[in-house]
Amino acid sequence: MSPNTWRDISGCSSVRKLAKSESKGLQAVTVSLSIRSLLFASAFFSSSAICLNRLTYLKKEERVEMAGASGKKEKVDKAGPSGGGKKKKDVKKETGLGLSVKKDENFGEWYSEVCKHEMIEYYDISGCYILRPWSMAIWEIMQTFFDAEIKKMKVKNCYFPLFVSPGVLEKEKDHIEGFAPEVAWVTKSGKSDLEVPIAIRPTSETVMYPYYSKWIRGHRDLPLKLNQWCNVVRWEFSNPTPFIRSREFLWQEGHTAFATKEEADEEVLQILELYRRIYEEYLAVPVVKGMKSENEKFAGGLYTTSVEAFIPNTGRGVQGATSHCLGQNFAKMFEIRYEDEEGKREMVWQNSWAYSTRTIGVMIMTHGDDKGLILPPKVASVQVVVIPVPYKDANTQGIFDACTATVSALSEAGIRAEEDLRDNYSPGWKYSNWEMKGVPLRIEIGPRDLENDQVRTVRRDNGVKEDIPRGSLVEHVKELLEKIQQNMYEVAKQKREACVQEIRTWDEFISALNLKKLILAPWCDEEEVERDVKARTKGETGAAKTLCSPFEQPELPEGTLCFASGKPAKKWTYWGRSY
Amino acid sequence: MSPNTWRDISGCSSVRKLAKSESKGLQAVTVSLSIRSLLFASAFFSSSAICLNRLTYLKKEERVEMAGASGKKEKVDKAGPSGGGKKKKDVKKETGLGLSVKKDENFGEWYSEVCKHEMIEYYDISGCYILRPWSMAIWEIMQTFFDAEIKKMKVKNCYFPLFVSPGVLEKEKDHIEGFAPEVAWVTKSGKSDLEVPIAIRPTSETVMYPYYSKWIRGHRDLPLKLNQWCNVVRWEFSNPTPFIRSREFLWQEGHTAFATKEEADEEVLQILELYRRIYEEYLAVPVVKGMKSENEKFAGGLYTTSVEAFIPNTGRGVQGATSHCLGQNFAKMFEIRYEDEEGKREMVWQNSWAYSTRTIGVMIMTHGDDKGLILPPKVASVQVVVIPVPYKDANTQGIFDACTATVSALSEAGIRAEEDLRDNYSPGWKYSNWEMKGVPLRIEIGPRDLENDQVRTVRRDNGVKEDIPRGSLVEHVKELLEKIQQNMYEVAKQKREACVQEIRTWDEFISALNLKKLILAPWCDEEEVERDVKARTKGETGAAKTLCSPFEQPELPEGTLCFASGKPAKKWTYWGRSY
Repeated sequence: MSPNTWRDISGCSSVRKLAKSESKGLQAVTVSLSIRSLLFASAFFSSSAICLNRLTYLKKEERVEMAGASGKKEKVDKAGPSGGGKKKKDVKKETGLGLSVKKDENFGEWYSEVCKHEMIEYYDISGCYILRPWSMAIWEIMQTFFDAEIKKMKVKNCYFPLFVSPGVLEKEKDHIEGFAPEVAWVTKSGKSDLEVPIAIRPTSETVMYPYYSKWIRGHRDLPLKLNQWCNVVRWEFSNPTPFIRSREFLWQEGHTAFATKEEADEEVLQILELYRRIYEEYLAVPVVKGMKSENEKFAGGLYTTSVEAFIPNTGRGVQGATSHCLGQNFAKMFEIRYEDEEGKREMVWQNSWAYSTRTIGVMIMTHGDDKGLILPPKVASVQVVVIPVPYKDANTQGIFDACTATVSALSEAGIRAEEDLRDNYSPGWKYSNWEMKGVPLRIEIGPRDLENDQVRTVRRDNGVKEDIPRGSLVEHVKELLEKIQQNMYEVAKQKREACVQEIRTWDEFISALNLKKLILAPWCDEEEVERDVKARTKGETGAAKTLCSPFEQPELPEGTLCFASGKPAKKWTYWGRSY
Repeated sequence: MSPNTWRDISGCSSVRKLAKSESKGLQAVTVSLSIRSLLFASAFFSSSAICLNRLTYLKKEERVEMAGASGKKEKVDKAGPSGGGKKKKDVKKETGLGLSVKKDENFGEWYSEVCKHEMIEYYDISGCYILRPWSMAIWEIMQTFFDAEIKKMKVKNCYFPLFVSPGVLEKEKDHIEGFAPEVAWVTKSGKSDLEVPIAIRPTSETVMYPYYSKWIRGHRDLPLKLNQWCNVVRWEFSNPTPFIRSREFLWQEGHTAFATKEEADEEVLQILELYRRIYEEYLAVPVVKGMKSENEKFAGGLYTTSVEAFIPNTGRGVQGATSHCLGQNFAKMFEIRYEDEEGKREMVWQNSWAYSTRTIGVMIMTHGDDKGLILPPKVASVQVVVIPVPYKDANTQGIFDACTATVSALSEAGIRAEEDLRDNYSPGWKYSNWEMKGVPLRIEIGPRDLENDQVRTVRRDNGVKEDIPRGSLVEHVKELLEKIQQNMYEVAKQKREACVQEIRTWDEFISALNLKKLILAPWCDEEEVERDVKARTKGETGAAKTLCSPFEQPELPEGTLCFASGKPAKKWTYWGRSY
């Protein structure tokens, strides 16, 4: 589910169908709540893993190779296997470590597996998911950033009720025709029927705006800028997907009112810039800022801007977050007026804007690899994991102490670091485990490192290993984390850029679409033409639609024609299938 | 509604009835959502207030009196009224400023009025309230404190779904008999009936513990410490009261599992201490830490500890927050077992603990006065309001600049300060308005202050005025805010102490109850006896019950008898009516 526009909740059923075949592998697992079955399902996890043997640790050849590639001094640990020499594949099966599918081979299944590794727990109600601490921490980091930024803009937090009465909901019926099927209704409390059924908010325009009408009297009450962090419910029936489309999700929704359109316009872009920063600076996911088409804009609003991401593996666009100018339509509907300085009654101009836990799904899809998740350092609750690599009777206590000292030094410098001193797992098992969890940087400390007063760092994003003198640990690690953050963004951007295809004709469009491209096309900007494109591309893998018209427009030479209608083109627009 | 124990949601209907007569004035107003009526309801607010004349400002005599009382240099501003000289009472009526009832005369109505002044907006669904920014900011400040503290304890945040399937809910039926009537059920989405109705969480034990059973395998998975910040719903029908008893409220709920009872016991008290600190250090509300009786403990738990506040005006105790040791009952029910170091399967020990937005209601009740709210500095989103007091053609711009400079200086020092430079309100109106909102400290700057390079401070808690040299502004204000925080706590504590009455006999008990005392009585600690006391005190204003047995026990001389049963007393216990 896309939480961020009403477009998604107002009837684009065709769009939803599109996603169907792609995400078959993602269909929500209805976890049977038989406790016994749960026990069996993961009973192997903590016990049988013990016999797994230092997988990564063993692969000396690879180490040499990587170190050579990075031009760094190679460190060859002498530690050999401490147990049976099972092959990696067998071990995966036995321990649950590792993924059973590759990202390129079965993206849907891959995504589901990665999510299940401590990010999400599937719940016994389809379409609902448990956000485990590993993903919740990411949400909180983004929240801290965004909340501070909007407070600088004088936005204030509030909390409106979860429930909406049908009278208020109906007030909006022209605007939310397609949205009614997704509303969850409370009809009973205990064994009694409620006198009137009560809806659960799918978004809060109808919840809030009657009170805006009450609170806003004169021009001095403007601007009114409120935000809330909350859960919303959209009871969708198709293709639940962790983070990306769930029946309940967490988001923030900002609702603001201004005296003038200029102020509203300005805020729309300020917020959009914050959304860009969340994606690009925090999640290291490149996005395009742009304007939604008339077909795709927020129903009832004046115009919608969005940040759009793209998933190369599926060739689908994904709407990252939206900032809407609602114009005066809602003000009219809810009679939100103010008295201006001359005593005239005027209608306010309104915006609404939201981003949701969907952000986390986009991040996973963008960066994850066949080893699991890769977290950008800025949102990782653990940025560095420190793992002791003891060997026989070498100075084990010394190694453990060095690990602890390393974590202390990093923590003091504000780096989120953790040690993994568990004695029932081999270093190799730990490597795989923390790789699966996506921790950006691993530090290994073995006897040789102790001897040389150094630590070994291993980057999660590109596997590069480096030996760092303990004396300059903090600076080195800070620098590395910044490099990782930057590199993740650059790599993702390159991958996306490689998918962009500028086309001019219908034939080029269709062939680019089949190649899962992010299509940039000259367009006449007519609603009818977009509808026509949708109709003509409808099929198993879904119809193509506009994603956005980027604010940064390439040159459009005079005489350029629309790829679809042959009429004069007005702008360049991104097209593609989408989530 | 008391969000913090199941006791409240599991059948103490008698207790709820108690609150009835007291809080008649608090019954939720069902706001008709006719927009027109909303318009009329508050139309006078922003416009007609303009003719209000510097109320406080005018009251020179009072100023002299106060300044004299505080031994400080008196500053008499020469500014006279700038408009008609209406009496305060008339003005109140006309502008909506001020309260129509006194705290001592009609506490229920008083509370409702104070809440409605920017803390709460009544909603069109009874029992649901809008938390406006003024109250939300208080919640956020407490949240920041508590969240950081539990993270130090290695508690991790997560988010579990809002919905519970009936199968899981029924698993608990022995424990939640009385709770079923308050569960809200979703039975429809759009126009379709759901195959199975789905419950909305009233608390999350049943939501979470099936997954604890899955996640906890071995002793290394312990302790498991999770917390979530979320909304919960309890569809109660009696006496909704803002903050204190609402159908939806915000809270945190912590759910932890340990290998040993000792660890669980220790955490119960660690958390309880945090709750005490929220009340005493942040909200300046004195509380008693203690143990709940068998009758009043969390149903299904082993024992319940709580912090208990007391509202002298109504003579009612109010359970502030609870920290429960669940023992192994839930572990048994949900099969939450771990393999210990010897390979034996053992059951975990569990705790759960919660505090809710009820805290804010207790604070309002404790500190508010006939002028409105009084906020303790530590939780006030605006700690200092700076108000210019211009006079005729005196250096108005200079005064405004001084206000702005004052706010800058305070803000830079980390003090939450705001200026009120609105030119359509008189200083007097502003004084009343910010007093109503409870801002702890007001700073006034007039021509004389400018001349003397000073500002005038006025404390909200006791009205004391002081002239402060601008040179030592920041230190003075910091000191004042600390004094206010401390004084509010001391005053509240004295008021509560004045209500405590130690009794020995049934007659003393009854007469103390009639005098709205917080009764400390020697008790035999038998469930039957507590039930008997409840039955014997049942009436219009509700039955008395145990509040808690304080951890700090006065001496109990041998031979002391239970006030109710005449059997040997085992402990001192607080008794009273309660919210």
